[in-house]
Amino acid sequence: MAFETEALVEVWRGGRVESEHRGAIAVVDANGQVIAHVGDVDLVSYLRSSAKPFQLLPLVESGAADRLGFTDAELAVIAGSHSGEPRHVAAVQSILDKVGLSEDALQCGVHMPFNAEAAQALRVAGREPTALHNNCSGKHSGMLAQAVDRGLSIHAYLDPQHPVQVTIRQRLAELGGITVDEIGMGVDGCSVPCFALPLRAAALAFARLTDAREDGLRRVSRVMMAYPEMVAGEGRLDTDLMRAVPNRLVSKGGAEGYHGMGIVVKDGPALGVAIKIADGDGRRGGHPVVIEVLRQLGVLDEAALAQLQSYRTWPITNHRGLEVGEVRANFSLIRDV
Amino acid sequence: MAFETEALVEVWRGGRVESEHRGAIAVVDANGQVIAHVGDVDLVSYLRSSAKPFQLLPLVESGAADRLGFTDAELAVIAGSHSGEPRHVAAVQSILDKVGLSEDALQCGVHMPFNAEAAQALRVAGREPTALHNNCSGKHSGMLAQAVDRGLSIHAYLDPQHPVQVTIRQRLAELGGITVDEIGMGVDGCSVPCFALPLRAAALAFARLTDAREDGLRRVSRVMMAYPEMVAGEGRLDTDLMRAVPNRLVSKGGAEGYHGMGIVVKDGPALGVAIKIADGDGRRGGHPVVIEVLRQLGVLDEAALAQLQSYRTWPITNHRGLEVGEVRANFSLIRDV
Repeated sequence: MAFETEALVEVWRGGRVESEHRGAIAVVDANGQVIAHVGDVDLVSYLRSSAKPFQLLPLVESGAADRLGFTDAELAVIAGSHSGEPRHVAAVQSILDKVGLSEDALQCGVHMPFNAEAAQALRVAGREPTALHNNCSGKHSGMLAQAVDRGLSIHAYLDPQHPVQVTIRQRLAELGGITVDEIGMGVDGCSVPCFALPLRAAALAFARLTDAREDGLRRVSRVMMAYPEMVAGEGRLDTDLMRAVPNRLVSKGGAEGYHGMGIVVKDGPALGVAIKIADGDGRRGGHPVVIEVLRQLGVLDEAALAQLQSYRTWPITNHRGLEVGEVRANFSLIRDV
Repeated sequence: MAFETEALVEVWRGGRVESEHRGAIAVVDANGQVIAHVGDVDLVSYLRSSAKPFQLLPLVESGAADRLGFTDAELAVIAGSHSGEPRHVAAVQSILDKVGLSEDALQCGVHMPFNAEAAQALRVAGREPTALHNNCSGKHSGMLAQAVDRGLSIHAYLDPQHPVQVTIRQRLAELGGITVDEIGMGVDGCSVPCFALPLRAAALAFARLTDAREDGLRRVSRVMMAYPEMVAGEGRLDTDLMRAVPNRLVSKGGAEGYHGMGIVVKDGPALGVAIKIADGDGRRGGHPVVIEVLRQLGVLDEAALAQLQSYRTWPITNHRGLEVGEVRANFSLIRDV
């Protein structure tokens, strides 16, 4: 049973499309109205790291974030997939210090920093990366903080039945307008439970996060907009997007071509966007789609588009540096309202 | 205008399909009869490196290969996308020596060897790769050999109007049962002209190559089957496939999810197969499809399937090494005969 998707991105070579990336898109307002779509808005897909803002939310809503004295930048790194830059690693270390734990408590596993300079610095120093460099270490330290604040086990925090995980899942279901039982479960790259929701439910959750009718939602969306460099890192889409339209956008990509966004709308309910690239290619398939959705929704003006041009379309060059093709989005959002 | 494709490969996580790879497949016999298909057999797609056996063919058919004294292993590397292993580099050097040219004549560009040991050896020696290490250096040296043998320019051999290129294109069209004008043109990663054909035409060309009713066709298909390690390299699909079913299969992958094969059929016309993975992912999208097509066509027995298991399906593991999902093909060839 194949996904119900549409062609979204074309990869051109020599005057014809050589490859294409398909996917589905849901745009939903904070009242739950589907505003626009491409493909099946009921497509059920894992949010992967796009769930991070919602995995942070109970830490803020419970008051634990204040009790533990976390800064806004630290909250942003908890909601982020960071690049392992020095400021990211320092923020996660600070979070763990405030919680009274060491990096040994992190069960996210280890990988080299996404940031090339940070990775090179480790190599030059002859050092191995630690769990702190894992792009998910902020999220994991935030889950540990929730566990410590509630007096719960810090060893079993990845168990889907651990109260920290149950609370996160319940809150995400509530914001998405579905029941907890409707959320599909898997295990993420960093070993946390990951959540599969219909695109329309995920988009609604992002709309409500950004609409910020409650203090906790407001705090999470505002720290992400205030510290875009903590949500991803230099040269990465989420960071550059939120910088390009300051205080208007919450953007959080996930693995396998997932992308969630919230858009502040003047004098109206916020919009939420959920995008799934069916083949899982979040860069070549995903980046042009994210920019094109925002363009069609009127979020990006010419200046912002120019700033984000390298994410929107790019030439394909060969081993001699010749331009032999191009990657570009080609779809129209179907307006439902 | 999207490609007419079907879902071919499923990427599972936590009991549901997270991502999928779509594509189209044509299976055609050497008489031009479509035997089986999935999706649109008239889908026009670039063969990329799957064209290499046909780019070698005029070198053999003109008699130049014999005049220049090329060995069968050298012919196989001309038809291959080699890994830059020492035996590959030595073969290309030998070809150039016989032609009386140096590596400076190669216009393929430079990249690190695909083979990890060969790449590491260069790094340890503090050496940069040369054009000889480019996976297409065999093909380029073969084109130069054709130019030298015909007394043509060796500088303009990449020009689509160069007689060497025109001859290749005419022969490919003839074998595919189409006109030269029906072949779409682009520029490949190594700067040679690349060819877009309907899948059914490409499959027919592979069927005729493998059916080997003429000396030149026989020589090309037989050197590829005899020297599978020269067509790709250790740990790569084409090499391992041709080893798993000796003297029964010609296999040549290309970039962007393209794959061409010829299958020797006892007491009947050979079969040709052309596969295009629409999103261009030749590994996760392509490898399981290649194996599954051959399984459904009865080419691979249980022993061969066991040998090729790692190309057929594999677990998805996360940063802690946990198995969290699986990649596997899921489609049925539609039989046309």
